[in-house]
Amino acid sequence: MNVVITNPPRVGHKTAEALARFGVATVHEAQGRIGLLASSMRPIYPGAKIAGSAVTVSVPPADNWMLHVAVEQCQAGDVLVVAPTSACATGYFGELLACSLAARGVRGLVIEAGVRDVAALTRMRFPVWSKAVSAQGTVKETLGAVNVPIVCAGQLIHAGDLVLADDDGVVVVARLAVERVLRQSESREAKEEETRARLRAGELGLDIYGMREKLAGKGLVYRSAGLEG
Amino acid sequence: MNVVITNPPRVGHKTAEALARFGVATVHEAQGRIGLLASSMRPIYPGAKIAGSAVTVSVPPADNWMLHVAVEQCQAGDVLVVAPTSACATGYFGELLACSLAARGVRGLVIEAGVRDVAALTRMRFPVWSKAVSAQGTVKETLGAVNVPIVCAGQLIHAGDLVLADDDGVVVVARLAVERVLRQSESREAKEEETRARLRAGELGLDIYGMREKLAGKGLVYRSAGLEG
Amino acid sequence: MNVVITNPPRVGHKTAEALARFGVATVHEAQGRIGLLASSMRPIYPGAKIAGSAVTVSVPPADNWMLHVAVEQCQAGDVLVVAPTSACATGYFGELLACSLAARGVRGLVIEAGVRDVAALTRMRFPVWSKAVSAQGTVKETLGAVNVPIVCAGQLIHAGDLVLADDDGVVVVARLAVERVLRQSESREAKEEETRARLRAGELGLDIYGMREKLAGKGLVYRSAGLEG
Amino acid sequence: MNVVITNPPRVGHKTAEALARFGVATVHEAQGRIGLLASSMRPIYPGAKIAGSAVTVSVPPADNWMLHVAVEQCQAGDVLVVAPTSACATGYFGELLACSLAARGVRGLVIEAGVRDVAALTRMRFPVWSKAVSAQGTVKETLGAVNVPIVCAGQLIHAGDLVLADDDGVVVVARLAVERVLRQSESREAKEEETRARLRAGELGLDIYGMREKLAGKGLVYRSAGLEG
Amino acid sequence: MNVVITNPPRVGHKTAEALARFGVATVHEAQGRIGLLASSMRPIYPGAKIAGSAVTVSVPPADNWMLHVAVEQCQAGDVLVVAPTSACATGYFGELLACSLAARGVRGLVIEAGVRDVAALTRMRFPVWSKAVSAQGTVKETLGAVNVPIVCAGQLIHAGDLVLADDDGVVVVARLAVERVLRQSESREAKEEETRARLRAGELGLDIYGMREKLAGKGLVYRSAGLEG
Amino acid sequence: MNVVITNPPRVGHKTAEALARFGVATVHEAQGRIGLLASSMRPIYPGAKIAGSAVTVSVPPADNWMLHVAVEQCQAGDVLVVAPTSACATGYFGELLACSLAARGVRGLVIEAGVRDVAALTRMRFPVWSKAVSAQGTVKETLGAVNVPIVCAGQLIHAGDLVLADDDGVVVVARLAVERVLRQSESREAKEEETRARLRAGELGLDIYGMREKLAGKGLVYRSAGLEG
Repeated sequence: MNVVITNPPRVGHKTAEALARFGVATVHEAQGRIGLLASSMRPIYPGAKIAGSAVTVSVPPADNWMLHVAVEQCQAGDVLVVAPTSACATGYFGELLACSLAARGVRGLVIEAGVRDVAALTRMRFPVWSKAVSAQGTVKETLGAVNVPIVCAGQLIHAGDLVLADDDGVVVVARLAVERVLRQSESREAKEEETRARLRAGELGLDIYGMREKLAGKGLVYRSAGLEG
Repeated sequence: MNVVITNPPRVGHKTAEALARFGVATVHEAQGRIGLLASSMRPIYPGAKIAGSAVTVSVPPADNWMLHVAVEQCQAGDVLVVAPTSACATGYFGELLACSLAARGVRGLVIEAGVRDVAALTRMRFPVWSKAVSAQGTVKETLGAVNVPIVCAGQLIHAGDLVLADDDGVVVVARLAVERVLRQSESREAKEEETRARLRAGELGLDIYGMREKLAGKGLVYRSAGLEG
Repeated sequence: MNVVITNPPRVGHKTAEALARFGVATVHEAQGRIGLLASSMRPIYPGAKIAGSAVTVSVPPADNWMLHVAVEQCQAGDVLVVAPTSACATGYFGELLACSLAARGVRGLVIEAGVRDVAALTRMRFPVWSKAVSAQGTVKETLGAVNVPIVCAGQLIHAGDLVLADDDGVVVVARLAVERVLRQSESREAKEEETRARLRAGELGLDIYGMREKLAGKGLVYRSAGLEG
Repeated sequence: MNVVITNPPRVGHKTAEALARFGVATVHEAQGRIGLLASSMRPIYPGAKIAGSAVTVSVPPADNWMLHVAVEQCQAGDVLVVAPTSACATGYFGELLACSLAARGVRGLVIEAGVRDVAALTRMRFPVWSKAVSAQGTVKETLGAVNVPIVCAGQLIHAGDLVLADDDGVVVVARLAVERVLRQSESREAKEEETRARLRAGELGLDIYGMREKLAGKGLVYRSAGLEG
Repeated sequence: MNVVITNPPRVGHKTAEALARFGVATVHEAQGRIGLLASSMRPIYPGAKIAGSAVTVSVPPADNWMLHVAVEQCQAGDVLVVAPTSACATGYFGELLACSLAARGVRGLVIEAGVRDVAALTRMRFPVWSKAVSAQGTVKETLGAVNVPIVCAGQLIHAGDLVLADDDGVVVVARLAVERVLRQSESREAKEEETRARLRAGELGLDIYGMREKLAGKGLVYRSAGLEG
Repeated sequence: MNVVITNPPRVGHKTAEALARFGVATVHEAQGRIGLLASSMRPIYPGAKIAGSAVTVSVPPADNWMLHVAVEQCQAGDVLVVAPTSACATGYFGELLACSLAARGVRGLVIEAGVRDVAALTRMRFPVWSKAVSAQGTVKETLGAVNVPIVCAGQLIHAGDLVLADDDGVVVVARLAVERVLRQSESREAKEEETRARLRAGELGLDIYGMREKLAGKGLVYRSAGLEG
């Protein structure tokens, strides 16, 4: 159980960067509405957006020892993804660990627990998505595991899966699906761009999507306010 | 049930703009402490403030079809107000619908559910008050209703009621009460401005409001720390 | 019970300012991981940081009368700390009270309840840590107490204790412990500064803290991804 | 605003009793999935089930004075329905008020706030649906209103509407819709009884409801576990 | 900090038993509405009621080592009261510790965290008030303290204080106030018993408490439903 | 994606029954503290305890169509395990589906969503662990999947895994680990039974587990209350 898997396969940098042009909502739709982490995962500051290969960490409650172990397994372009084995809002991560990850080129942290030093992390522009902010520290007594499959905020994540995070939340894309999801995101985005232009010009979704007939078929009725009882 | 009421009476633009000079707290007080939506309704970015006539939408859980229907009923100066028939944090609304509403001059959205594309909505300065941010999409299968009375975040809202929202939350003012509440807000604000000046100058509320006697009458006692046990 | 304790002993301004150079996380660690308020206490805007002597207020649910009493007890450098006797998210505090406190040089407010006028408070840069934002007002009917010991967000706070608040939350330091905690914070910070530099240079925490042997002793195993079943 | 409406029209006892044979889920379905109070409203003991005409009460936060006023307006067969004007979990109601209501033949209480003395209420078999249990008491300082329309746990309720509550929660039926909803509940229940018998006998819903073709049409695929990759 | 205080003064058994005749709501009122723990503290089974001297335990997050230390400090008639230094819902306590406490005559447990083996605890009739039920276990690595003052669910509790718990929640009475609160509870209960009899006989609280004039003075208006707009 | 996997391998009935002799807490410990579902999953009535092979169902938000599909895949001894693709508290399951499952010998339901008809389910003694009770119904419009791996309340569950549920919550044991976990549970239980007897006889855990020396080594100090400052 207490194992560190080294050198898991990763998503290529170019692919990650290509996918990072799209938002979490777009990618979530493009891959068939799967992989979205719970909406309790919020960014510590607005405007951040990252995509990278997951280095996964399973940690005991209120114990961040394995984060130090995980740092060594991280490479440039990775995203650290952390899930405690029991629900816990303690502050597992702060400025020191962020310095260490930033030095290795890690893009950010996704953690289903608490973080601290958020003013410093904001100044460093080291983005974090967490379920809490808490100055409460942890101990270093019990082992966990690195790069094993984990469930984080309701989603199964394997080491090397692509993790994409922005102001809407966090989505995971299975490593082997990334190329396909990238193409689907591009095609969805192209279609949306066209729709966006038409909507901005004042056309209605009712007409663009051809919804009027289906609505009438389901029984939708229009009635003028003046005619109400 | 599945009805769209067209052309409900609305609050005049000038009145809405006049009321928008006051904050939600002031208006809530001025109208007798009624009409405040639950404090779980939060803005997606700080600093926004809007007032406008409500276009109300009742939607099924996880189904945003009626939002497309509602867009057509919106005019410049309106605020879209959406309540699901069952508690739901799914992302009903995103950038595309915002483009469509912005094109019609709609001032913002109040929704007792989730929204997505919040980075894009922030860039567009299209303000939203919601109870969640979630990239999870919805389906378009089941009808609802537009411009019927709805209960949103604990308050009854009719089409054409005035909805005012700022960083403190959201308050609804019944259409026929708007003129009266406007005058009461003005008078309250005038009084507060005077009090504010005196407080800034160092006068105490205890004296301005003449509270000392009433406090003593209720039995308030002062004791120097040095004399404690 | 309904008592106002006047002139409690306070922490010196220089000491408070010295402690304010450190963050809540550092001070919480330095004093042995005690005194942290519940993480439900959040700042109304990011980036604020204050330290000062607590003026404590015990208030009835939905009644802010005692805040007006407490203002008179405040001096420059104080922090107002408010706890209701029963859980309550009503808006006890707004712009008017903030004007009054700012005029006296009070540094901010910590309240286990709601606040309102947050746009105005943000413009004034009057920082507040609260558990809710709510425009709902209070009454002025029932007495409470000022400068008695209170429990706020899970921590016991005496008048004159030092309260430190930043983006991570709020921590209380007992008045008589402040000098000791200041020295411990300085020494902790000095050590961390050195570690930070080494981590930024790419050294690993595993080596800096000498963790490798202890990890192996507890049974941590490394396995290459390529060798997995 | 501070008004007591006397003698509102009520639902007849026979109709209420007839509707009480059905559960909240059945009635909610029968009336078109409207009128369900939020699922945070829970019974204080299992197994209770009531139906009756609503006597509505709007109360200030942490103030139960109007409950004493409301008692006088209650008749045998009524259900007291209480909503605070601001979210509040204080214990508004206990054994004494229950004795008073029981003496008048009131069937139970629905309150979007707290109750206390739940052991005594359980012994008396006086059922309550509330959002909290709390021994914290209230004051009697501020007026409210009786038998005005209120929003309770997200639903608009008028005096004299029928309120039905069981272990599943609480549903409101508009007074003028009660007869229609009763007939719809009876017809729904009759149909369900037949379905229940067939399901107990081992028939499948897939066949009873004729779902197989529609599922296949939407693209549902069956695959044997043995044939998986 | 890591200290066990032995043999704190306690409340006498007779006094505790006398106070246990009253409910939490009565005692909370009798002592002036102080000392009530947060309403998130719920009993694991209905119908239990205990009173006894507190043995207090401060525990680290997810670490129950100090509970084993605390058992030795417990005597017949005590109530074990446990608060973690950081919010935590882990299962600190189960059947084995309950066997040990029951063997010493301890009356029950109050814990602002999780418990497990609740089926066994229910069979043993060993009552627990907790904020969660969780099978997740703890470690035994870090010290805490026994019989020091703790804050549990928002209340300050000293070793030897009286703790009373029933279906309404938990209240603490300071040891030196117990005799006074007992007399106040008796007098309150006597008065309530008389009121209860009158209410059961159909008298109204409006008349018993003489509220009608005060209500009219505040402006309460009665209006017949038939005369509404 | 929209697939039904038929005839997954299952855990043998005898093994399931053997494991059902142990509680969730014991099995969770025995398998190394993994597999525990979030503590928000609560039984609808106390005292139920089940173990069986999981039939897993992935469902869209507020759509229970796939439950009807899943029934056909269930055999005697199975436990139905349901997770929505987006957080949802709607009532997916009620008496009719329970009749159908009971007719096939299914032992119970675990669902990270809402259920209804809980009074009827309690009378039938059909146990359910859910995160909510809600009478709100669902639609039957969108496909999902049966017997694919799902994440339910934070745990990854495969079809055919063993699911064990009691008053403490729900734990999953991987199918291939069941025999090993059974032996570990037996050995843990045997050891606990012996400890239980010694604790009941008044021996202390401090002595049974030999903790005194380790506690002293970590610096635990005993001090008599009489000697305190």
